[in-house]
Amino acid sequence: MPELTLFEFRLVYNMLSLSIAAMLGSFLFFVLVRGQLPAKYHPAMVMSAIVVAIAGYHYFRIFHSWEAAYSLSGDTYIPSGKPFNDAYRYVDWFLTVPLLVTELVSVMALPGHIRKPLTAKLVIASALMIALGYPGEIASGTTRVVWGLLSTVPFVYILYVLWAELGKVVEKESDTTRVLFRNTRLLLLATWGFYPIAYLVPLLGLGANASSEVALQVGYSVADITAKCGYGIMIYHIAKSKAADEAREAVPHRAGQYAPAQ
Amino acid sequence: MPELTLFEFRLVYNMLSLSIAAMLGSFLFFVLVRGQLPAKYHPAMVMSAIVVAIAGYHYFRIFHSWEAAYSLSGDTYIPSGKPFNDAYRYVDWFLTVPLLVTELVSVMALPGHIRKPLTAKLVIASALMIALGYPGEIASGTTRVVWGLLSTVPFVYILYVLWAELGKVVEKESDTTRVLFRNTRLLLLATWGFYPIAYLVPLLGLGANASSEVALQVGYSVADITAKCGYGIMIYHIAKSKAADEAREAVPHRAGQYAPAQ
Repeated sequence: MPELTLFEFRLVYNMLSLSIAAMLGSFLFFVLVRGQLPAKYHPAMVMSAIVVAIAGYHYFRIFHSWEAAYSLSGDTYIPSGKPFNDAYRYVDWFLTVPLLVTELVSVMALPGHIRKPLTAKLVIASALMIALGYPGEIASGTTRVVWGLLSTVPFVYILYVLWAELGKVVEKESDTTRVLFRNTRLLLLATWGFYPIAYLVPLLGLGANASSEVALQVGYSVADITAKCGYGIMIYHIAKSKAADEAREAVPHRAGQYAPAQ
Repeated sequence: MPELTLFEFRLVYNMLSLSIAAMLGSFLFFVLVRGQLPAKYHPAMVMSAIVVAIAGYHYFRIFHSWEAAYSLSGDTYIPSGKPFNDAYRYVDWFLTVPLLVTELVSVMALPGHIRKPLTAKLVIASALMIALGYPGEIASGTTRVVWGLLSTVPFVYILYVLWAELGKVVEKESDTTRVLFRNTRLLLLATWGFYPIAYLVPLLGLGANASSEVALQVGYSVADITAKCGYGIMIYHIAKSKAADEAREAVPHRAGQYAPAQ
């Protein structure tokens, strides 16, 4: 761990605390608004809630690990000797990433024979992606490159399933729902794009200094808040849009029943 | 306690934290999806939630006991002198194992005169199994063997009740439900199989070194996550399958009411 200025240490410290608060806030949102949606959208909301609860737990641990890893000496934060446990992030992703991809399938409320194989493929591929990344994370040089490349294979497969296979299913949705679905998928791609960049940092010889450590921790926090809280809110909007479409198609006296209270 | 390398200590550390997160996530799952099932399946979901809540508490304690039992000296984790309290596991099983076997009876939603005696037998046998195992756990040699054998008697009786007595009751369920029930029972047998193996480790003279201690802690964590979170999710699927069967059999205008959103 590099020595940090007061500003650098506190920036990470406060970003980690912001992450805990964002996970808590969005957990409450997903639990509390669930009842406004038809029952078939509840599983997606439950998964969103579980994802941010698990992430909140891990940010709580990361926060305390960060605090314990440094001690203040004059105007500088110096390593205390206690290791900073970044592996919490991998444990978190191992649990939450399969749930995140499942959410996107779940909110489409597809028939079981389409939903189940799609979910199985995405869950297995995403757990593999994280599991193959970890041996590279704790290594350097060629080992890191090899595991990184292995981990890229399931990542590309996930993109294929989300674009080619799930994309087809969405074509019959209304315009609003389709646009929301596409934006959610792009949000997922954009935020997930940060993780491989962070993974490459030590390979480019940028990992040992203060500013890259700070950039990494801040970047991870922003990526996690976007990919979990923001993504969950997008999923909620897809559910609301689909429910409104269905209400319009339903018998007249029921029309508008599930229309969002806008 | 043996000395551990950085990798060994952290592997156990992160597995224990993963267990806490898994218990938390599945607790929320059981609580939040309960409402989607008919009321007669709520007791099974409540039991699943209680099991993982109790296990989450114990993993929290085990995590902090593990952390306190070691201190970092250079590149090695050496015993700090504080004992690692593995007895948390027995306390956990004493409370959760009777609940786990009760869950499987409960989700079958049997009439009281069949359910109550089955539950009573399984609860008493499973509490006995754990209680008889503990005196052997803290002993070695012949004492360990004798208590281990005594503990096996109720274990075999539980298997008899689950296969012979509960098995009969399930014959009239639909194909899907029967397959789910059988898989759940096999999951229970497979995961429970780890505990006697772990119990035998010191008898085979394998207990004192680092790699067997690490294997034991990782194995316990994986077995507990599978036997509690995974098993609870299987129980949920049995409930969903039974509810769907019942909806199909019900009067036409109610058909599909409880059909899972497949």
